[in-house]
Amino acid sequence: MFAHQRTAALKAAIELDLFTAIGEGVDTVTALALRSKATERGVRILCDYLAILGFLAKQDHRYSLTPESATYLDLRSPACIASIVGFMTLPEKIDAFKDLASVIRTGRPALSGGAGSISPENPIWVDFARSMGSMQLPAARELARSLDAGAGKKWKVLDVAAGHGVYGIELAKQNPNAEIFAQDWAAVLDVAADNAREAGVERRYHRLPGSAFEVNFGSGYDIILMTGFLHHFSPREIEGLLRKVRTSLAPDGLVATVDFVPNEDRLTPPRAAAFSMEMLGTTISGDSYTFAEYQRMFLNAGFSVNELRPLAGSGHSLILSRI
Amino acid sequence: MFAHQRTAALKAAIELDLFTAIGEGVDTVTALALRSKATERGVRILCDYLAILGFLAKQDHRYSLTPESATYLDLRSPACIASIVGFMTLPEKIDAFKDLASVIRTGRPALSGGAGSISPENPIWVDFARSMGSMQLPAARELARSLDAGAGKKWKVLDVAAGHGVYGIELAKQNPNAEIFAQDWAAVLDVAADNAREAGVERRYHRLPGSAFEVNFGSGYDIILMTGFLHHFSPREIEGLLRKVRTSLAPDGLVATVDFVPNEDRLTPPRAAAFSMEMLGTTISGDSYTFAEYQRMFLNAGFSVNELRPLAGSGHSLILSRI
Repeated sequence: MFAHQRTAALKAAIELDLFTAIGEGVDTVTALALRSKATERGVRILCDYLAILGFLAKQDHRYSLTPESATYLDLRSPACIASIVGFMTLPEKIDAFKDLASVIRTGRPALSGGAGSISPENPIWVDFARSMGSMQLPAARELARSLDAGAGKKWKVLDVAAGHGVYGIELAKQNPNAEIFAQDWAAVLDVAADNAREAGVERRYHRLPGSAFEVNFGSGYDIILMTGFLHHFSPREIEGLLRKVRTSLAPDGLVATVDFVPNEDRLTPPRAAAFSMEMLGTTISGDSYTFAEYQRMFLNAGFSVNELRPLAGSGHSLILSRI
Repeated sequence: MFAHQRTAALKAAIELDLFTAIGEGVDTVTALALRSKATERGVRILCDYLAILGFLAKQDHRYSLTPESATYLDLRSPACIASIVGFMTLPEKIDAFKDLASVIRTGRPALSGGAGSISPENPIWVDFARSMGSMQLPAARELARSLDAGAGKKWKVLDVAAGHGVYGIELAKQNPNAEIFAQDWAAVLDVAADNAREAGVERRYHRLPGSAFEVNFGSGYDIILMTGFLHHFSPREIEGLLRKVRTSLAPDGLVATVDFVPNEDRLTPPRAAAFSMEMLGTTISGDSYTFAEYQRMFLNAGFSVNELRPLAGSGHSLILSRI
C-alpha cells in the first residue's frame, strides 16, 4: 500500500539530480543537501529509501551509485533515461489511478475527463515526445538493425504516431536512402522534427500532422512503423486502422509493430503484461494484447504473414506483417 | 515509476471486495464482474495485475487466493486487515507524495497545509482509528503477553495517543484488574471507546481527550503505552514528552514504546527503515529512529534502563523503559 512512495521517491531523486551528484562523488548527506539546496533530513531519508530499494549503495554513511543507476539515472551517462520521469509521473497520470475502483466499475478512465490519453491533441503526448525518446533509443537502434537499414535500400517510411520520432529517425540515420513521413499531432511533430534536426536527417523528415485515424497517409510505403501505439485502442479500432495502413503499403511492403506483447497467460513477462494496468487507468479500451490477438487483428485487416520477434534492448516485441 | 499503480490496484481490489469473492469461489472474470458490478475488461486487467504481483494465483483463466491473501485480504478471515486501506491510501496522504522534491527542499510536508499529520484534531486520526486496529491486533496481543498481563496485577495504565485503542484494550482483556486511561483527540477516543465496548472492557476504559503534549495525564501509572506515536516528532519534542510521561509514572512503573526501530544502518529491516519515508511525506520532523537514538532520548529524559525487544506479529519493536 505504500508502493506509491517508490514512484514519488524516484521522481524526487531525479528532480533533485541526486544520481548525478552521487556519481560525481558528492556522497554524504550534508554535501548532497548543500548541492541540492535541500534539507538534510529530507536528503537522508530519500537516499536511505533509495538504498533500501536498490537504487543506491550505502557504506559508512556514504552513498554510491549501483551499476544500474550509474547507467540509467546519472545525467552524464549516454544511456541515461532520467528524462522519462517527465511523462511517467505526470500529475494527471498519477491522479488517473486515484480511484481505480470507479474506473473498473464504469469503464471510463479519469484522465482527460473520461476521454483518456487518446483524446484529440491531448497535450500529454508533447510531454511523452520530450521525455521518452531516451528510453526508446536502444529499441529503435535494434529495430533499424533488424530491418537491415544499413543496406541502404530506397525506402519510403511511414511512422504512425511518431511521438519523439526516434524509431523513424534511427531508420533515417542508418539508411541514407530512407525518406521518413511522420504522423502525429502537430505539437508533437514539432518535438520529433527537433530530434530529426539534431540527428541531421531533417531534409528527409516530412510531417503528416493530425489523427492516425483521419490524416491522409499517402501510399507506396516500403515500411510502416507503429511503435507503442496500438495498445491504446480496442481490437475493432485497431483493425480499422490496420485496413487503412494496408492501403498505404507498397505490395511488398512491411509493417513493423513495436509493442508490449505478453504471453498467453497474460502474466509473463511481467513488464509487458502489467502494462495493461497503465492502459486501464489512462484509456477507454487499450490493452496489452497477446500475439494471438494481434495476429487475428492483422489477419482480419488483410495481412497474411505475421511474425513475432523479441526486440533486444527493451521490454517490447516486434511484429513484422506483410499483405 | 509505475509503482504507484500497485497501491491503486490493491486499494481497488479491496474496495471491489474481489478477495472475498475469489475466496468464495467466484473465480472467472465474467462472474467476478457480475458480482462486483464492474466491467469485465477492468476486472480482468486488475486480477492479472494482482496475479503478477503475487496477490492472486491464476490457472486456466481462473483465479484463486494465495495463502497470504486468504489470511489477510478475505473479509471472512479473522486475521483480515483489508480495512487498513481506509487510512493507508487516504487521498490526502497519497497527494502528500505528489511533489516530494519540494518537501525535501523546504522541509515542510504538503499534508494539512504544511502542518503535517500531527496538527491539532487532524481528522486523519479518526480514519486511522477506524482502519488500523485490525493490523495492530497481533502486536497488541503479543505486547500484553510480554507484559504478563494475564498475571492479573492491579494496573493503572496510560495509553498515550491511543488511536483505535487496541493496545490498551488488549491489556484490559488479558488483565481484569487493569484500568485504562486513553488519551487522544476526542473524536478519535470515540472510536477507541466503541472498540472498548465491543471488547467488554468499557467500565475500565477512561478518556483523556486532548493533545499528548498538553492534557493532564494524572499520575501513578504502572504502565504507560506509546504505540506508533513517537515517530511523528523530533528528538527534542520526544524528550519533552518523555519528561512529562516520567512525572506520571509510578516509581517502579514501566514505559512500553512500540514502534518501527531500524538497525544502525537505517536500511534494515526494510519495512521499519522505509517507514521514515512516510514520516518525511506527512510530518515536519518525524523519523524511524534507531534504538541508539531512542536510548539517548530516554536517558536525557531521566529513564535509566531501556531494553529493546522484537514484537512478534508485527514489523514493530518494543522498547521497555524504567526510571
